[in-house]
This record gives sequence, structure tokens and C-alpha cells, in this order.
Amino acid sequence: MLPRVTGAESLLRTLAANGVDTCFMNPGTSEMHFVAALERVPSVRGFLCLFEGVCSGAADGYARVTGNPAATLLHLGPGLANGLANFHNARKARSPIVSIVGEHATQHLKVEAPLTSDIAAFARTVSDAVRVASGTDDVGPAASATVESAWGPPGQVATLIIPADYSWSQTDVVGWAAQRRQRCVPSGCTIDRARRAIREGGAAILLGGTAVNPRGLSAAGRTGARVVTARNVGKIAWGRDRFPAAQVPYFPESAMPFLQDVRSLILVETEPPVSFFAYPDTPSEMAPADCEKIVLATREQDGTAALDALADGMPPIAIPTVEPVTALRDDAALTVDSVGVSIAALVPLNALVADEMVSSAAKVLGHLAAAAPHEFMPVTGGAIGQGLPVALGAAVAAPDRKVIALEADGSGMYTLQALWTMARHRLDVTVVIFANRRYRILDIEMKRTGANAIGDAVNNAIDIGRPRLDWVKLSEACGVEATRAATNREFAMQFEDAMKRPGPRLIEAVLP
Amino acid sequence: MLPRVTGAESLLRTLAANGVDTCFMNPGTSEMHFVAALERVPSVRGFLCLFEGVCSGAADGYARVTGNPAATLLHLGPGLANGLANFHNARKARSPIVSIVGEHATQHLKVEAPLTSDIAAFARTVSDAVRVASGTDDVGPAASATVESAWGPPGQVATLIIPADYSWSQTDVVGWAAQRRQRCVPSGCTIDRARRAIREGGAAILLGGTAVNPRGLSAAGRTGARVVTARNVGKIAWGRDRFPAAQVPYFPESAMPFLQDVRSLILVETEPPVSFFAYPDTPSEMAPADCEKIVLATREQDGTAALDALADGMPPIAIPTVEPVTALRDDAALTVDSVGVSIAALVPLNALVADEMVSSAAKVLGHLAAAAPHEFMPVTGGAIGQGLPVALGAAVAAPDRKVIALEADGSGMYTLQALWTMARHRLDVTVVIFANRRYRILDIEMKRTGANAIGDAVNNAIDIGRPRLDWVKLSEACGVEATRAATNREFAMQFEDAMKRPGPRLIEAVLP
Repeated sequence: MLPRVTGAESLLRTLAANGVDTCFMNPGTSEMHFVAALERVPSVRGFLCLFEGVCSGAADGYARVTGNPAATLLHLGPGLANGLANFHNARKARSPIVSIVGEHATQHLKVEAPLTSDIAAFARTVSDAVRVASGTDDVGPAASATVESAWGPPGQVATLIIPADYSWSQTDVVGWAAQRRQRCVPSGCTIDRARRAIREGGAAILLGGTAVNPRGLSAAGRTGARVVTARNVGKIAWGRDRFPAAQVPYFPESAMPFLQDVRSLILVETEPPVSFFAYPDTPSEMAPADCEKIVLATREQDGTAALDALADGMPPIAIPTVEPVTALRDDAALTVDSVGVSIAALVPLNALVADEMVSSAAKVLGHLAAAAPHEFMPVTGGAIGQGLPVALGAAVAAPDRKVIALEADGSGMYTLQALWTMARHRLDVTVVIFANRRYRILDIEMKRTGANAIGDAVNNAIDIGRPRLDWVKLSEACGVEATRAATNREFAMQFEDAMKRPGPRLIEAVLP
Repeated sequence: MLPRVTGAESLLRTLAANGVDTCFMNPGTSEMHFVAALERVPSVRGFLCLFEGVCSGAADGYARVTGNPAATLLHLGPGLANGLANFHNARKARSPIVSIVGEHATQHLKVEAPLTSDIAAFARTVSDAVRVASGTDDVGPAASATVESAWGPPGQVATLIIPADYSWSQTDVVGWAAQRRQRCVPSGCTIDRARRAIREGGAAILLGGTAVNPRGLSAAGRTGARVVTARNVGKIAWGRDRFPAAQVPYFPESAMPFLQDVRSLILVETEPPVSFFAYPDTPSEMAPADCEKIVLATREQDGTAALDALADGMPPIAIPTVEPVTALRDDAALTVDSVGVSIAALVPLNALVADEMVSSAAKVLGHLAAAAPHEFMPVTGGAIGQGLPVALGAAVAAPDRKVIALEADGSGMYTLQALWTMARHRLDVTVVIFANRRYRILDIEMKRTGANAIGDAVNNAIDIGRPRLDWVKLSEACGVEATRAATNREFAMQFEDAMKRPGPRLIEAVLP
């Protein structure tokens, strides 16, 4: 029993007691009691974002780094709607998130107010669990249940909708200590089956979920099987001194030859790889149709422990030496490759790299294999606008690590409001904008889909360079120091400086 | 029978044949054939927007001005998700919109690709009609049916989801000429009933929907009843020389006394007024509980014709003379009132004014009653981020009229990408940013909801002035000329200049 508090305060106390102490928010009238309760539960820190897609993406980034959920606090159906695209990405990354959404007071639901909408319908599009608090006394318990859903495993976007009157009324109930289900280790016979497949030859291990960590990679390497990583994982241990596991390529014409010799595919916390998009006369599944699929660990299980068991008794293997690279400091115009080399040379140990480079990603990721060991946070759900918010959330989660957002100009425009929150909290994020002034990926896809048209109408749908976006001004307008680099020398100097000084920083890398 | 064309081209031909010739778009891979078809159906003009919320809001603005639908073209579930908030507003405005969403090719739906989602579930949250094309031959017919749904009456957000293979395959079928259902005039007995209520005294006519036009206002005035306008209408005929019909106030403590003497409420294309939000101990319905509700015209009917019939035989009434006001040109610091006065003095005849001033709206609307006759496009659904996109769509719809977006700084940040499309097409939009550097409305709501907390945590959720957003840089970065005004003289000079010169322009009005 507690002294009586508002439902909103019960919610916050429940979240805090379960370790959910970070809230990315854009509240409105129906969430005012939640905001008021932040004064009384100071262990929960609120981070205001100027657009809800920043909140949901930041919670994704926070979860990828910590493995634990942050909360988001959004305003009614439309506020939630603005967060859905990045919740979609978070769901595909299996990031745990506690999504709190305010609803009109229950007595107001019978009328058609301007902001009335079916919040649960919005939420179900991206959430594995959707709850509506059934009364003030239920707010705390529903929050505990929501935390349990978020934890998974695997992590889920779990939504809790709270009518305003349950938030402003009094209760003496807080939620319980949420129970965390442990990931279990697959049975011995599953492991034996995978071991047999490796012995027979032609086996590849596809690492996904939480297993793409140094221990998982190293264990997979020791098995002697070929090791490949899935694309849609929250983070990948990358850089030198890690077992070099190539990512399944993006385009089917590369992915299919890449996998064509695989006779058995050993799946670790992931599903068989599929192509991002469909194309005329191209299959959706990238592995050979007749290859055997062996599920070593499901999404719910502990893939790393399964790999340890699979490699049990195998000798350590030597990780091939990769030489560090040197930043390019000549006066040549920047290219995607030269930017990639200089970043690879200068990235500090243990950095967190958020990716949304789109058409530039494959080349840069290749160069980063020679960088100091770091964690790379890939695109997971393909909804544009992920990169800057994920970097923001990662920086809140790990204030002692340098965060680098590698961002395309087209994608960056989706959630550029993230820059403002980086500036407000002086977060240690360096943003590199790959400014090619086109939706370059669509130039490629236009040909690949067979549409293959050229002309003014097509160009008007792909060219984002008329007028030219000025990323230096956009960044400064949001309070983030910014510079522009057109040559290798300029980029290396600016990026090196950014790596040395803490705080937010943006570099617009002008590309052909 | 046609020469065989792609499904995408059949779609475009069907839209063009039904007068839907404007498309606000942000396409992706699954829409490449649609983009290619734009080359072959040049009567449909595509406007690229750098975020989907700009597309949906622009289509809303276009519909409010023309009464006809524009199309939007969005990419899969997450692209649609980013457009939902402004579709919500459009739905509440009863704006007709044809929302086209690309889906993965049907053979790809069996796998869980990164962008796989339940598009129809996203669409249903804001659409009155959701269709999925059932084959290539169905694309054109489904487009015709979607146009019919969009037309209503009342206007609807009608969604058509098209799998990519139906877009890229060939067909010789195009859609039919869509049939427009006419709004009908209410029966004589309904009109008699309203006439009796007016004769008995204490009647008020609440004008909504399409009836808030000069003819409807004037007819309502001639009936002798009190005339009041609903808040959630797509546009209001406003300014001098119009029958002065006050809007129902925003806050219940004003709206309830405003309506307390009403004994019968005559509803014209609208519902009884409700408060925007619920508060402890405040009812949701603003009219007295015992007042009689008379539906003179439903949302589907022709409210203007009903008012004409109601006023039949009544003499014309003199519209009270309102003197024009003069712009303020002193060196005093700007206030919301002084900005309102100067805008009212300088707005040109027949301007289109898009509102998203939030806490500043009531004062400015009051001053605009003395402006030259214009059309005011209010907030309808309360989802933030409406103002700039609605202004963009209005400018595309009416290139011969000056468009003015009156925008709060907090709301403006939601869809500032609209500025870029204004710049690309040199649209004649003047944006005024009411920069008070707070979510000022939340200062008010914090007290009104009874939460009433103060402290750093609360201030951090409401103060958007640390760091200060620089709207001049944001605007210039998107290619729109911009200035900042802190005094009455500066504002009047800048706004006057903007009214004289065509093309996009932004003024950051610095407010206390």
C-alpha cells in the first residue's frame, strides 16, 4: 500500500522500479499528469523530441545498445501515428520498447472530438502487445505487464494506452516487479543435428538476433562452418579483431550467388534470408530452394550459448589480421569510398555507428571492416528516418561512447528534428550526411524493377537537389555545430576534430 | 479496349480521366512503375515531398480549396504511416483524397521482408474506404471506385493498395468514369421544423461542412437566428463584408457560456459541438443538455441549399460595416495581437489562410475579421503538422491566389519539409512563424487539467527554446527566402513585401 498518488505517478514509479528510467516524449494535454509526475519521480528522465518519429527511433537506439527498454510517451492516435515508422523498424530489430500513449478521458470517448481515433488500431500495426488500462488501479499493474511484454524474449514494442482520467485520478496501487523470461539454450539434439550438417560439408551458419556479438561470432567461426550475418539485426560487432562474417548482400543478384553453394543453412535467432523487395522473375528467398534449414536457436532462444555448445571442444581459431587504414588527406573530391576509408581510419574503439546510408551503405560497411572494433547498427525495417533518432537514443544509453550517425541526405530529412534533442542534451554524436542530392537508390531500383523510364517526370521524383538542401544551416538551426566537406582533406580534418571533441556535430559530405 | 499498358499506367489514365491530375508523392521501389507511367500520362503532375506527412497534408489543402481530390502516392506501410496524422486531419475536414499505396509484389507477401507490414491496417485507421487491387485488370476499376469513395459526399480519405506486380504487369482495362453522387436538399418538413424553432426564439444555427461559404452565411443570417460556425471545417469564408458568425470557442469555460442561451441548435453539415479535450468535472458536450437538436442538413446533404430554402422569402440583411485596420509600424516589440493586426491590414483580397497558430489562433482570427475577404483553413483534427502542408497544397490548387500559412514554431517543426516543395515549385506561399519558443498551449493545459505542476521536469517538456530554433536558417536551408521580425515595423515591412512579390517566403515573428 502506498500513499495515494495519481495513476500517472503510479505508472512512473512502476517503470522506475523495473529499470525503465528513460522516456523519449512529446506529450500533449492528455499526458499532462504524466509530465507533472516526472517532478515527483526524478529517477525517470524525460527527453523531449520535436517529432514523435524521433521518440520511437531513439527508444530503438537505446534498446539496441542496452538490451533494455526505454519508454516513449506520445499523445493520442495521431502522436502515435507519427512514431509508427520507427516503431516498425524497432519491431524488426526486436528492440524492447515500452510505448505509453495517452487517450482521452473515458467520458470523452462517447463524443467525436477532433483528436478522437482508434489508438489501439494504430498501435497494433507495430506492436506485439497492446494494452488499455482498465482503471486507475490498473495503471501500475498494466505497466508491469507491458514491461514484461517488452522484454520478450525477443524484445517487443509493447504499447500501453492510458485514458486521461485514469492518469489524473488517485490510486494506492503500483505495479509489480516484472518477471524477465530467460532465453533458454536449445536441446542437445538440435546442436547435434547442426554439428552433423557441418561435418557433412556445405553448411553455413546465419547469425541474427542477439548472436552477432564477439562471443557468438568467435564460436561460430570455431565450428569450421562458413559464417554469414543477417541484415536485420539490431547491432553487429564489427571492425578489426573480430571473426569476419560477411553480411548477406542487399540485392538478389548478389545474395543468390553468395548463398548458392549452401547445402544446409544453420539459423541462429533469425529466419532464412529474403530479398528486400520483389522483382519480376526473381524469387523472394535467397538461399537455394533445396538447402536444408536447421534452426539452431529460435528468436526466443540464446543463440550465443547454442553456438558455444556447438563449438564446444573445437580449438580457438586465428582471426585474420586486418591492417588499419589511414585517412585520406589529399585535395581530391570526396567519393563514397574515400569517406568510408577516412571514417574507418578515425573511428575510435568501441564506437556506436548508426547506419542509414542507403545506397552508400555497402561500400562504407566494407571499409569499416578495417576500423577499430565497434558496433554497427544497421537498417532493420527499411522505414526511412531511422538513423538520426537511433543515434540519439544510443548516445543517451551510452554517454561514455562516441556515437556516429552515417546518414543519407534523403533519409535524414525524415527525422532531422533529432538534431535539436542532441543539441539540448549535448550528446556525443557525430552525424555524417552523405549528400548526393538524389534518392540514389531509386535510380538503381528504377532499372531493376524493369520500369526503366527516364525523363523529367522520373527525374522530378528522384532528384532532391533542386533546390539544394543546406545541411549546415539545417544543423545550425537546430543548435548543432556543422561544417561542409567537399575534399578528402576537408573531410578527414573535420571528422578527426569531431572524434576528438565531445558533443554533437554534423558534417555534410558532398558527394558526386 | 486499349493497347496493353502497365497496371500503373491504367491507374494514372483512370485518375486523369476522372480529373485527379495532381499527385503529392514520395515513392519507393514498389512504386517505380507508377513513376515511370508519369512519363506517359503527362496530364498528371507529380509533386515530390521529402516526407509523407507533407503529401497527405498537401492533398488536404488541395481538397479544401478545390473540393476535388488530389492523389497521394506513398511507399508501403511505413510510408503510409508517416502520412497518417495529416490524413487524420483531412478526414476530420471531410477532404476528398485518393491515397495510393504501393505494396510488395504478391509473391513476396509470403515472406517476412523488412518492409512487410499490414498496410490495410494502417490505412483503416484514417480511411473510410480501403481497397486492395485484386489483379492487374482490377487496378483501373479499383481506382474508379476509389475516386467515387473519395468524392463522397462528404469527402473521404479513400485508400487503394496496389501490389507491385499488378503495377508492372500488362492490362488492356482502364477504369470507368466515376459517378459523383450529388448532395441532396433536405425535405420540406425538416426545413419547416427549423423555421418553427427560429420563430419560437432561442435558436442558433451551427454551420459546418461545406456550408460556411458566403452564400450559406448570408442565408443563415437572413433567417434571423443566431449564427455560429463549427471549428472543424475545411475552410471558412472570413473577413469584412461577410455575415459575422462567431466560431464556437476552443475552451469549455468559454464555449459553454457562449452556447448557454441556445434552446434549439440547428445543425448544418455538422454535429453538436464538443470540447477538444476532456477535463475533470467538465462535460464533453458544449451545448446545454436540454437544448433541442435539429438536423437541418446532414454531412451528406447540401447545407447551403437548405439554408437558402430556410431563408426563402426573408429580406436581405445589412452586413455590419467593419472598418479596415492599419498595419502597425512602430518600434514596439511584436505581440500576438500586433502581428494579427498587421496581417489583417495587409492580407490581399481572396487570400487563402492556413492556420496552425495553436495558442495564438483565437486572437489572430479575431483580428482577421477586419481583413479583406479571404478563406481561413482551420485546424480540424488537431494532429500537429498540418499548417505548412495544407498551405502547400492550397498553393498548388490555386496558383492565382496568395496563400498565407500562420504557423506555430512547435507545430511547424513537424512537417517543415514542406518548405522544400514550396521552393522547388516557386509556390506563392508566405509563411509566418509565431515563434514563442514554447509549447505554449501546454502551459495553459497543464493548469487546466489540474496537473498544475511546475519545475524543471515540466519545463523541459514544454520549453522548446533551448536551443533556440533558427527558422531563418531552416527556411533558407530548404530554399525559401526568410527574414526575422522582432518589432512591429520590421514585421509590417517584411509582410507587406511578401504580399507584393510572388513566390515562397518565410517570416519568423519573434514573440514574447
